[in-house]
Amino acid sequence: MPNASLLETFATPTRTPFVIEHTAEEFTSLCPKTGQPDFGRIILRYCPNTVCVELKSLKLYYQSFRSEGIFYEAVTNTIRDDLTALLSPKWLQVASKWRGRGGIHSRIIATHGEVPAPWARR
Amino acid sequence: MPNASLLETFATPTRTPFVIEHTAEEFTSLCPKTGQPDFGRIILRYCPNTVCVELKSLKLYYQSFRSEGIFYEAVTNTIRDDLTALLSPKWLQVASKWRGRGGIHSRIIATHGEVPAPWARR
Amino acid sequence: MPNASLLETFATPTRTPFVIEHTAEEFTSLCPKTGQPDFGRIILRYCPNTVCVELKSLKLYYQSFRSEGIFYEAVTNTIRDDLTALLSPKWLQVASKWRGRGGIHSRIIATHGEVPAPWARR
Amino acid sequence: MPNASLLETFATPTRTPFVIEHTAEEFTSLCPKTGQPDFGRIILRYCPNTVCVELKSLKLYYQSFRSEGIFYEAVTNTIRDDLTALLSPKWLQVASKWRGRGGIHSRIIATHGEVPAPWARR
Amino acid sequence: MPNASLLETFATPTRTPFVIEHTAEEFTSLCPKTGQPDFGRIILRYCPNTVCVELKSLKLYYQSFRSEGIFYEAVTNTIRDDLTALLSPKWLQVASKWRGRGGIHSRIIATHGEVPAPWARR
Amino acid sequence: MPNASLLETFATPTRTPFVIEHTAEEFTSLCPKTGQPDFGRIILRYCPNTVCVELKSLKLYYQSFRSEGIFYEAVTNTIRDDLTALLSPKWLQVASKWRGRGGIHSRIIATHGEVPAPWARR
Amino acid sequence: MPNASLLETFATPTRTPFVIEHTAEEFTSLCPKTGQPDFGRIILRYCPNTVCVELKSLKLYYQSFRSEGIFYEAVTNTIRDDLTALLSPKWLQVASKWRGRGGIHSRIIATHGEVPAPWARR
Amino acid sequence: MPNASLLETFATPTRTPFVIEHTAEEFTSLCPKTGQPDFGRIILRYCPNTVCVELKSLKLYYQSFRSEGIFYEAVTNTIRDDLTALLSPKWLQVASKWRGRGGIHSRIIATHGEVPAPWARR
Amino acid sequence: MPNASLLETFATPTRTPFVIEHTAEEFTSLCPKTGQPDFGRIILRYCPNTVCVELKSLKLYYQSFRSEGIFYEAVTNTIRDDLTALLSPKWLQVASKWRGRGGIHSRIIATHGEVPAPWARR
Amino acid sequence: MPNASLLETFATPTRTPFVIEHTAEEFTSLCPKTGQPDFGRIILRYCPNTVCVELKSLKLYYQSFRSEGIFYEAVTNTIRDDLTALLSPKWLQVASKWRGRGGIHSRIIATHGEVPAPWARR
Repeated sequence: MPNASLLETFATPTRTPFVIEHTAEEFTSLCPKTGQPDFGRIILRYCPNTVCVELKSLKLYYQSFRSEGIFYEAVTNTIRDDLTALLSPKWLQVASKWRGRGGIHSRIIATHGEVPAPWARR
Repeated sequence: MPNASLLETFATPTRTPFVIEHTAEEFTSLCPKTGQPDFGRIILRYCPNTVCVELKSLKLYYQSFRSEGIFYEAVTNTIRDDLTALLSPKWLQVASKWRGRGGIHSRIIATHGEVPAPWARR
Repeated sequence: MPNASLLETFATPTRTPFVIEHTAEEFTSLCPKTGQPDFGRIILRYCPNTVCVELKSLKLYYQSFRSEGIFYEAVTNTIRDDLTALLSPKWLQVASKWRGRGGIHSRIIATHGEVPAPWARR
Repeated sequence: MPNASLLETFATPTRTPFVIEHTAEEFTSLCPKTGQPDFGRIILRYCPNTVCVELKSLKLYYQSFRSEGIFYEAVTNTIRDDLTALLSPKWLQVASKWRGRGGIHSRIIATHGEVPAPWARR
Repeated sequence: MPNASLLETFATPTRTPFVIEHTAEEFTSLCPKTGQPDFGRIILRYCPNTVCVELKSLKLYYQSFRSEGIFYEAVTNTIRDDLTALLSPKWLQVASKWRGRGGIHSRIIATHGEVPAPWARR
Repeated sequence: MPNASLLETFATPTRTPFVIEHTAEEFTSLCPKTGQPDFGRIILRYCPNTVCVELKSLKLYYQSFRSEGIFYEAVTNTIRDDLTALLSPKWLQVASKWRGRGGIHSRIIATHGEVPAPWARR
Repeated sequence: MPNASLLETFATPTRTPFVIEHTAEEFTSLCPKTGQPDFGRIILRYCPNTVCVELKSLKLYYQSFRSEGIFYEAVTNTIRDDLTALLSPKWLQVASKWRGRGGIHSRIIATHGEVPAPWARR
Repeated sequence: MPNASLLETFATPTRTPFVIEHTAEEFTSLCPKTGQPDFGRIILRYCPNTVCVELKSLKLYYQSFRSEGIFYEAVTNTIRDDLTALLSPKWLQVASKWRGRGGIHSRIIATHGEVPAPWARR
Repeated sequence: MPNASLLETFATPTRTPFVIEHTAEEFTSLCPKTGQPDFGRIILRYCPNTVCVELKSLKLYYQSFRSEGIFYEAVTNTIRDDLTALLSPKWLQVASKWRGRGGIHSRIIATHGEVPAPWARR
Repeated sequence: MPNASLLETFATPTRTPFVIEHTAEEFTSLCPKTGQPDFGRIILRYCPNTVCVELKSLKLYYQSFRSEGIFYEAVTNTIRDDLTALLSPKWLQVASKWRGRGGIHSRIIATHGEVPAPWARR
């Protein structure tokens, strides 16, 4: 079951704004309709405020979806909401990319806050 | 025959705006002039309002073009119109990419509404 | 329905042995169990004897599978058998590559005769 | 000799603005200085007004450059001008990409009208 | 728990020898030491005798490893042994490719019988 | 018209056997049935005896096919025969790869003599 | 230990603004928690004022992190701060890309000043 | 020695603004410190005014750097300045990409004038 | 210092011969002449006898080269010798691939025993 | 002028046969006919006897071709002969790959001795 209490933080090491991106290649959950496993990639990007998410705790949080029956859209919005609550970031984006079924593959993008200028104009 | 009545929806799981993209790799229809099969990829992107399109119903809807004689431009605009009518989305884009014939391959892009900021500044 | 009578030949332009390969990127048939469309690529390689297969007739023959419910293995062996009967080639190989379903994609290879030396030692 | 009279049109199937892209991989003309053949790719993108260019006629038009001695820049501007005259489009772009000679390869981009918003912010 | 009783067969459609390859992109099991999930790709190749493995049953069999703590080497040899027992094939090869941990990624190849000539000299 | 008299040679600079490969990316001829242009790549490989083919003359020879209506198979065998007559090589291979028409692309391989050991065991 | 005193500069060769990018493919430091080595790529981009960083000194500076236990975020911000202090540039960006551990790979981007127009609109 | 007098021009074939890009893959000069050869790619992009640079003269100009000891930054700015003086273009950009030494590869971008709208919003 | 005592083994899980490949992407040692770091990839392939190498111990063994001044050839032969002594394998191959210096990159391949048939005829 | 006296050797560190490959990406010489620069990649592979070639001396040797007018075939055979004389290797192969001119790119392969078994059956 998705378990946000697994997430831990550490203090942001600088006051200068910067952007962090963590790409998890090996996300898996279950389709709530058929019980078949879904496989995807979760890309988290954020501009931290006072705290950052600790990397190993993020991995364990993602693994807590392994036996959960949950739709693509709900996975993406749940992660966005849990991490926004944890980090109170200046900006946060969760993009999920799914390997797909039946010849259709999908991508969901959920955002919190305004894209910071250095990222928008990369 | 393209059959929009195959399409089904489900309630959007969150009120926070987000973007959904479904890429169908295996679209096929017929050339209305020659009867030769056309092969392409259909990319649907949208920002939902109150409902989302159900993925399996989308696949069946796409399959209803299999024996239809229809031009590239009409395929793309028909899908845009059918899905806009179904979803009343904040934004919707249909991009079709065709394998081509005679050394020319094509892409058609049809849109409804304004590109949402997070997508435009990815 | 697969229709080998669509196939036409022309006389081999030389007596020196050589190898011909035709790759059809846009093959489609139906799954005999579910009725769902299958999509694949068919690679035909052969060393002609006295006749070669005419390219446009080969395309029409492949298109005759479009509404046929037939398994991967049967598609591949049918094409191998039909073309072997047509061409009486020194060597012939049919390889099919399928986009797959449910996260598994497949390849089937069926052969007639011995691989010619120049091809084996490319 | 480039022959714009080969070009044909058909009525745009919808009043909603959309974008069409045709990529011709196999363009060839001659260098006017040396007579050596040039090889390139022509990408046409446009936002139609009341008519679209018919695809087969576009192919024949491109083939009419086959024996013409003409510079890269002139090829690109000629195609832009001929198609703008034919289509009176809202926006039109011709990009040519050349395989090059003597270790330098080139690209020329010629435009008519303002880039439509959905294309600019893809 | 790996469950070979999920596997089903169907009669080989031809007496002419041929080769079948099924690639499962989305295999997952658990590390028996740490409990961390492993992710990999399983490639099965075989030359059938009188029966072939049914594709959906193969998928369910692979999914039965999802909660199993088992090493790479044991996964590969178990699949080889289960499928050899099921199919009595002329030749069978199981290759597993793992995404890896700690900067090392691995591949295991287990075989039954002699490589058939057409495959060896592809 | 294919013109073998354009070909020139120079003396092989060493008595030690070696292999030469020239890949021409920009070959074009015409389809003898439809008059439509064909585009392809010609790969020439050979093990010289006493003479080698001069590179610029090879280019001009290839260009002499530009306005010729000729099938893929005949192009490949003609080049093999012309160069074998010119060079009396220990081994020679001509592979043509064609961009294709109607969704099928082709490759033809014609050979003279036995593959030299260092090439076969690359 | 990261040692900014290794860095050397030379006078900017022109007063016209321009952008410099140096990509170091072979950066390594240690994880401060586990002592395990981290491997990454450091991309430095800047618009110089009166001085540029000398390339060999930059390499030695990067090598001074080899035995340092330091987090991704701190590496990136330290380099940004050291080079900003050295160069007083008009704009400077440090992007680090890490090979990752446990299936998650990361990217950190830290910036000083406003993106110059020619870079933003490349 | 870099020799701008090698450069020649021809009259721009149209008054409609357009963009030209020439990519030279095979640039080489010498490191002024060590005498070691540097290898790179020079990408020139410009929007012509009344004249364009002739392609063969551009190649000879680039070759005039072959025995010159000169830094990356100076190569890029010299080319920008020489071509700006020659062409008085509306916009001009020189981007150099260097294969690198000691594990660091570099890119330098120098510009003259404002990016034209069609290029910025490609 | 390279430390073979870090290596651990476990009993081979089957008597049927099979092949194991471990690719370490992140190997680093020092050049014995200049002290500059070298970066490479080590690919170990073997056919086990009674024992296999434990993966984590292999990683630690590779890390013991981090501060060692040692040539490419010696790295490769040392690993081959240490692992052959540890495993007494039927066949073992160590291939190292180095990122290179001064525009030359290298590969070293050292082998123990005869290539097993299934690997040679993959 | 090609200068084999620049080449240095060191004693082979082991008596067990192994294979070394050095790939030089940045080779350049001049066309003896036109004076135009040629650019290529030189791949040296060998199985040493008692001595190996020192890497920096190999680089300097390659650089001694920079101002030499010499054909592709002569470059390749010269390097093969110079290194065979220097190393008396069990096996040696020089493969050159040239960027080409006029749409034709070339590869030359010259060998000394028999391919060692582990390399042939990679």
